[in-house]
Amino acid sequence: MDTIKYQLDESAMPTAWYNIAADLPIPAPAVLHPGTMQPVGPADLAPLFPMALILQEVSTERLIEIPDEVQSIYRQWRPTPLYRARRLEQALDTPAKIYYKYEGVSPAGSHKPNTAVAQAYYNKQAGVKRLVTETGAGQWGSSLAFAGALFGLEVLVYMVKVSYHQKPYRRALMETYGARVVASPSEETASGRAILAEHPDSTGSLGIAISEAVEVAVQREDSKYALGSVLNHVLLHQTVIGQEAIAQLAMAGDYPDVVIGCAGGGSNFAGIAFPFLGAQLRGERKVRVLAVEPAACPTMTKGKFAYDFGDTAHLTPLTKMYTLGSSFVPSGIHAGGLRYHGMAPMVSHLVNLGYVEPVAIQQLETFAAGLRFARAEGIIPAPEANHAVACALREAQRCKEEGVSKTILFNLSGHGHFDMTAYTDYQAGKLKDFEYSDEEVALALAGLPSVG
Amino acid sequence: MDTIKYQLDESAMPTAWYNIAADLPIPAPAVLHPGTMQPVGPADLAPLFPMALILQEVSTERLIEIPDEVQSIYRQWRPTPLYRARRLEQALDTPAKIYYKYEGVSPAGSHKPNTAVAQAYYNKQAGVKRLVTETGAGQWGSSLAFAGALFGLEVLVYMVKVSYHQKPYRRALMETYGARVVASPSEETASGRAILAEHPDSTGSLGIAISEAVEVAVQREDSKYALGSVLNHVLLHQTVIGQEAIAQLAMAGDYPDVVIGCAGGGSNFAGIAFPFLGAQLRGERKVRVLAVEPAACPTMTKGKFAYDFGDTAHLTPLTKMYTLGSSFVPSGIHAGGLRYHGMAPMVSHLVNLGYVEPVAIQQLETFAAGLRFARAEGIIPAPEANHAVACALREAQRCKEEGVSKTILFNLSGHGHFDMTAYTDYQAGKLKDFEYSDEEVALALAGLPSVG
Repeated sequence: MDTIKYQLDESAMPTAWYNIAADLPIPAPAVLHPGTMQPVGPADLAPLFPMALILQEVSTERLIEIPDEVQSIYRQWRPTPLYRARRLEQALDTPAKIYYKYEGVSPAGSHKPNTAVAQAYYNKQAGVKRLVTETGAGQWGSSLAFAGALFGLEVLVYMVKVSYHQKPYRRALMETYGARVVASPSEETASGRAILAEHPDSTGSLGIAISEAVEVAVQREDSKYALGSVLNHVLLHQTVIGQEAIAQLAMAGDYPDVVIGCAGGGSNFAGIAFPFLGAQLRGERKVRVLAVEPAACPTMTKGKFAYDFGDTAHLTPLTKMYTLGSSFVPSGIHAGGLRYHGMAPMVSHLVNLGYVEPVAIQQLETFAAGLRFARAEGIIPAPEANHAVACALREAQRCKEEGVSKTILFNLSGHGHFDMTAYTDYQAGKLKDFEYSDEEVALALAGLPSVG
Repeated sequence: MDTIKYQLDESAMPTAWYNIAADLPIPAPAVLHPGTMQPVGPADLAPLFPMALILQEVSTERLIEIPDEVQSIYRQWRPTPLYRARRLEQALDTPAKIYYKYEGVSPAGSHKPNTAVAQAYYNKQAGVKRLVTETGAGQWGSSLAFAGALFGLEVLVYMVKVSYHQKPYRRALMETYGARVVASPSEETASGRAILAEHPDSTGSLGIAISEAVEVAVQREDSKYALGSVLNHVLLHQTVIGQEAIAQLAMAGDYPDVVIGCAGGGSNFAGIAFPFLGAQLRGERKVRVLAVEPAACPTMTKGKFAYDFGDTAHLTPLTKMYTLGSSFVPSGIHAGGLRYHGMAPMVSHLVNLGYVEPVAIQQLETFAAGLRFARAEGIIPAPEANHAVACALREAQRCKEEGVSKTILFNLSGHGHFDMTAYTDYQAGKLKDFEYSDEEVALALAGLPSVG
């Protein structure tokens, strides 16, 4: 009764990304310009991104071809394996069938290179020399550093300060790939200095780091900004995950009843879920889809579906999304990749339409699940991915209680090799659960811009 | 010109281990009992190992079947990929073709689970409840912890003290799998206490940790010792690596001129090299085989081919091997997995017969090579594996200088995710080269037992 690997042949790797915009019953709300509060056009985004990515951002074509050069790099680690977790099923004594798609086999150890390589490619094509970005846990920063090294692009990363100190190994990884890493908030930018003037001890947030990266990116002609989640084109690049999973489950003669992903900005979640949701939207096959966030950063479960800025300094366009307000600074939980005040507008839209069910889980439950998973399956999940593991364990437990066998699929978005401090702290009893009160959330939401 | 992956189908995974003893022109020298100095028989080893492993240790059968249960677990990550490093070739501007077999895709991140799973299986079959072992860098300890978790075996690991402190993440990994980890030398054993009495600040060595593990292992009836390298049965289990590589190179229509592995105890080296050496010994195909050791622990290049103990406290049998003397405590270089005073007797025998060429490389050259490799190929090698990378780079450089295209194969035995401190230190200029003087080596060798 061992774990089974479903290894897709390289020739069956997807050759196009799947764009869920083509199948939406109602289009997602427009993106607004921060100055005029009018819908943005491609030209407004040109200082930030190369035109090829801007066109993907607004495309409604169902399939967007993956350039040969990008496919060629993907093949170093793709198709990634899909596993049937039979050792875990046995340990849980559940009648459920548990599958997981494992993205930790990429060189940077997570799903992020799927978009980092694509973004580096399009930027290189457009003559860009430097990419500036922010990173939370460091998964995105290390992936962009990896992609930058392949294409000979300079990479500058603003890393949320709490992670910069909690995760020195992830920082070392970025530097080994040749990137420069700066703790955010920093003294290098006006946005950073403004935050430090008010909060000298700020541990940072993705919102602050985005402000710094955007500010610096637009200062040079040959320099662009890169984002590792949230935007449509980023989610698009991740859909290779779900497309492969569909083909691999077909090898097993199976189809999921439940699809689960953890959600910070929303990219790994979208990657696994959108191809399944597309099939549902086209009336082909129904599926229950769960997006798991930390209870300590409850964007979808306690936030508001409203127009908001993507960053703290209000340099980005406004999007309609689930948000806790752009001034919200989440508590320093270990799943740094999930500490974002907002949620991808496309994911938010699908939550709002009822196609995606949000779930919030506390930190201790996620680590308990991760430990249980590691001892059964041998793979150490990243703390972010532990949220998906914990949710899968809840579903498997429900199957046991109800005596029904369901097919559960979750995305194991990355490994936790750079997060062992968190595992050590958890095992030493040093981690705590955390929840914001309704009053604190209401206060954060009171600062939302009055638009839309 | 991207890196190409050669992915072997699961159905082509080896079903037997290759035993080089079957093809030797001259048998390896006998193993001697530490008390009688007479050749040991299977019964002498019974307190340490289950009989199935002892029989493998002395077998001269060419192929030894891999039990179905072990194959089933192997399939979680095997066959491992073989890559043609075209991005690296391009960066080096070499006419050489460089291939690497990547063992870092295993759950524990190195080649060690190939034998850990097999050893845990045979011990479980024999009714053993607890496995006791030592670990240097932690690759072996984490692999045995992983295998122990799968088979429900208790695992106790004596970890060389310098690594215990240098590599807290590797320790956390073992603990996450459920193992107990003790810094060696410890106060828990007579061997440990004896060392500490003489050298209270001892940073430990594999030789000391082996003494502690052996001492504790034999104290309980249901407890056995497990070794991660050196012994014939351990090397045997690693031969899946080279067997797969031969099949994958055939997919590429290629065969190596040079095969390279780093060598500490000798297991990953044997894993990649023995199947190729076997073909040569059988007169099928010639190949140049290089075993790379750190200049700071020059067992094969400065040591003596002589009978010696495997451990410091002289609890183990004596084997004829290249050795620096069992009292030798190597300097605290970062490649903890290569800090062993001896070398596998079977590897030593082949070096002595002239089939294997030993090479010693300094630490700084290995890290420079690792960084270059990481930026071209995206994978961060373990410091041990950097020795193989550095040697491959030397060979590729020679091809460039001589204007010839050779086919180079090396074993990338594990990833460096748990060794990022070493990369940080290297980039900060904190690492140094180190070499023992001839006088120091002579002094260490003066302590060799006078046998054989």
